[in-house]
Amino acid sequence: MAGKQKFVSEITDMDKDFAQWYTDVVKKAELVDYASVKGCMIIKPYGYAIWELIQQQLDKRFKETGHVNVYMPMFIPESLLEKEKDHVEGFAPEVAWVTHGGKEQLAERLCVRPTSETLFCDHYAKEIQSHRDLPKLYNQWCSVVRWEKTTRPFLRTTEFLWQEGHTAHATAEEAEEETVRMLNVYSEFCENVLAIPVVKGQKTEKEKFAGAKATYTIESLMHDGKALQSGTSHNFGDGFAKAFGIQYTDKNNQLQYVHQTSWGMTTRLIGALIMVHGDNSGLVLPPAIAPVQVMIIPVAQHKEGVLDKAYELKAKLQEVGRIKVDDSDKSPGWKFSEHEMKGVPVRLEIGPKDIEANQAVLARRDTGEKVVVSLDHIQEEVTKLLTAMQKEMLEKARNHREAHTYSATTMEEFTKTVEETPGFVKAMWCGDEACENKIKEETGATSRCMPFEQEEIAKTCICCGKPAKKMVYWGKAY
Amino acid sequence: MAGKQKFVSEITDMDKDFAQWYTDVVKKAELVDYASVKGCMIIKPYGYAIWELIQQQLDKRFKETGHVNVYMPMFIPESLLEKEKDHVEGFAPEVAWVTHGGKEQLAERLCVRPTSETLFCDHYAKEIQSHRDLPKLYNQWCSVVRWEKTTRPFLRTTEFLWQEGHTAHATAEEAEEETVRMLNVYSEFCENVLAIPVVKGQKTEKEKFAGAKATYTIESLMHDGKALQSGTSHNFGDGFAKAFGIQYTDKNNQLQYVHQTSWGMTTRLIGALIMVHGDNSGLVLPPAIAPVQVMIIPVAQHKEGVLDKAYELKAKLQEVGRIKVDDSDKSPGWKFSEHEMKGVPVRLEIGPKDIEANQAVLARRDTGEKVVVSLDHIQEEVTKLLTAMQKEMLEKARNHREAHTYSATTMEEFTKTVEETPGFVKAMWCGDEACENKIKEETGATSRCMPFEQEEIAKTCICCGKPAKKMVYWGKAY
Repeated sequence: MAGKQKFVSEITDMDKDFAQWYTDVVKKAELVDYASVKGCMIIKPYGYAIWELIQQQLDKRFKETGHVNVYMPMFIPESLLEKEKDHVEGFAPEVAWVTHGGKEQLAERLCVRPTSETLFCDHYAKEIQSHRDLPKLYNQWCSVVRWEKTTRPFLRTTEFLWQEGHTAHATAEEAEEETVRMLNVYSEFCENVLAIPVVKGQKTEKEKFAGAKATYTIESLMHDGKALQSGTSHNFGDGFAKAFGIQYTDKNNQLQYVHQTSWGMTTRLIGALIMVHGDNSGLVLPPAIAPVQVMIIPVAQHKEGVLDKAYELKAKLQEVGRIKVDDSDKSPGWKFSEHEMKGVPVRLEIGPKDIEANQAVLARRDTGEKVVVSLDHIQEEVTKLLTAMQKEMLEKARNHREAHTYSATTMEEFTKTVEETPGFVKAMWCGDEACENKIKEETGATSRCMPFEQEEIAKTCICCGKPAKKMVYWGKAY
Repeated sequence: MAGKQKFVSEITDMDKDFAQWYTDVVKKAELVDYASVKGCMIIKPYGYAIWELIQQQLDKRFKETGHVNVYMPMFIPESLLEKEKDHVEGFAPEVAWVTHGGKEQLAERLCVRPTSETLFCDHYAKEIQSHRDLPKLYNQWCSVVRWEKTTRPFLRTTEFLWQEGHTAHATAEEAEEETVRMLNVYSEFCENVLAIPVVKGQKTEKEKFAGAKATYTIESLMHDGKALQSGTSHNFGDGFAKAFGIQYTDKNNQLQYVHQTSWGMTTRLIGALIMVHGDNSGLVLPPAIAPVQVMIIPVAQHKEGVLDKAYELKAKLQEVGRIKVDDSDKSPGWKFSEHEMKGVPVRLEIGPKDIEANQAVLARRDTGEKVVVSLDHIQEEVTKLLTAMQKEMLEKARNHREAHTYSATTMEEFTKTVEETPGFVKAMWCGDEACENKIKEETGATSRCMPFEQEEIAKTCICCGKPAKKMVYWGKAY
């Protein structure tokens, strides 16, 4: 029987083979399964529960900042995709094309949306007439498709889930404010909910979004020292407005083009959670995003009163968090390993001796620390522990990032750092794309962002020696 | 300026041209816009807010009955769709086919999911090994595509939003219980939340879902006397399990096939809301599903203290519902018409004289009734009004349905009823598909369902005169 079986918790050592460790965790923590279509994923109940919490907490922030949700069709006619030159060049090579509906060939091919700028623009051109119609602050939750050659669950998949905000404003200033506002919503969410510290900055011309005037990004650092772009916010200026004819009459009755933004976050964030917080026992979830915050494990549950006490504790603790009792017939040891693998923040052990002593054992997933607490104060103790854990997980991740952020002033130093000590490398840049390309070719590191918080590490570009314009975060990235 | 303009509230008279009235309402209440792809719709903020409330309240019910959410890919390989014979015959003629990814032609065509039975079965075949893995109670929220020839917003669109539950059980009995359980969840939701009464019953062989052993349905009646299939729940037996090889070892270590169900509700429900409750001033929403339950309209809002009082009332009422203040510079008359068109259940008028008298005017959208209430009891009065409205809207809809439910015992009577007094027609049936087809050909009415609550109206089939097996609800339908 299961009670005699051992939970197969062996996963690859993360410091030996991080990629295999990642694959083991997504599988063993029951986050995803592979689908029959290459590059697509099945998001299983536990993985989807994390996504639902991400959605709820982001959506709340979007609504608090005045945004409303809508739904646009999943298909874009080829002619519509082609309306903005840079945009179609960026996306056309990687879209899925629908050519037949039922038994008939379509007069025009439709692509499955890789992103919905063109659909929102087409709609805005009809909806926006007057300055009274502005701003438009729309968001949508949906799935998008990009035909990727190499894929990995959550990090790069042919289909993924995301939200895409699309806004239209009367002035360039308002559009810029919105772009920055949403980047700040993203960074606050990453730090306070996901416990993932981020670097905020601007993408270079080379790395910016197809069709954008400026792309802002938040970049986080994974356990293995590789960077992950975790959210982007784009200022389109009036480029799309001109391509799609989105105009309004201002207060002086003059026709003006609108200024637009878009911003998105995806299921990729689940990949970030795994790679920032995970360890050799599996996933570690910050309490704010954990589908189960406290798993109650009855010890010797066949003994009288143990299960009743476990349910009683659950009822009490539900007022302060998301709580479950594992009353299955697996052994406590099996249960310990299984919920460790799934990254449940706190394990509460309760057995006959604990009940006699009016106490319970609380075990923290991140540090392994165990404390014995009185049942009289169980709500306060659990709340205290979850709060501390949320805070300390962010601190730990920040310390890891600081410890893996380097700076370089010569190409030799840069190359050596990238090779030997993976992480962010801060280095000066002249602003020339040729240098950016050369650095990528020679070291494999890409420009992650020009951080808003600039430092002058040197006077000259690390690559060509010409006067430097910006300090850039570089790194290998997912 | 807007203050001087008149809100264009003229819509087609619903009793003169119901189809045009419907089109006017979806447009003027700002529920949808037409998309660049034929048959697809853009769900605008107000329409989507209704959908979000439907989602929240259904999802809560699914979770309370033990279901969890997952996400399956949107693409189905052609070979997978073909695995269950009846299913592929039912859906293949109306799917969208992806043939190219980026610049390359795919080795195998992929269809955009019209429904996801095949994907869930493929997954279950891998996931289910033992009786310990059962039941599987999965649901997903997503969009699906069916290539429709003639479309109407919400009622029949090429792409629509829905939820699809897919479950697997150890025994035929458990699958049957689940099928009925979810039909009951649907009917309770329709009646208590949407205020739409439904007839519960079973579809005939001809009308059942492609691949199902039995399809149960809830049927509602629109204002014009046409029926709308509002939700279906299917019992698949072990047909899909055999086609996909979904087997488990039971407690006696014997291999068994699972028994499956699926059930779905769609954005079509918004169409039902419009057509059951709407009137010649536009939409009428039951409070439980209204994005704004009370719209506060300040009268003479430029006068000192009026807007402040309106915000104060909003703050107070937010504890009991979804409340907004319309503080735009439109005239009160414009605002009245606009929020009437959008079906806001209660309008609260507050002006200088009301403030002086410590009172407000509450106007009900459904009956037009106005009451003057004291501000001292405003929370209780609003709650009372919303509760009464929710209850009375269901009663009104039920009375309408009763008044438009007829019975017939001869074909002559049947034909006359269908032609002259649109509604449900109850009539006996022998169970033979030939009679069902003949009735459809001659009258345009289809079998809506064999209701669970049977009555013996006559002994013989209305069509052929042979002994009758079932009493059937017939009617023209959307």
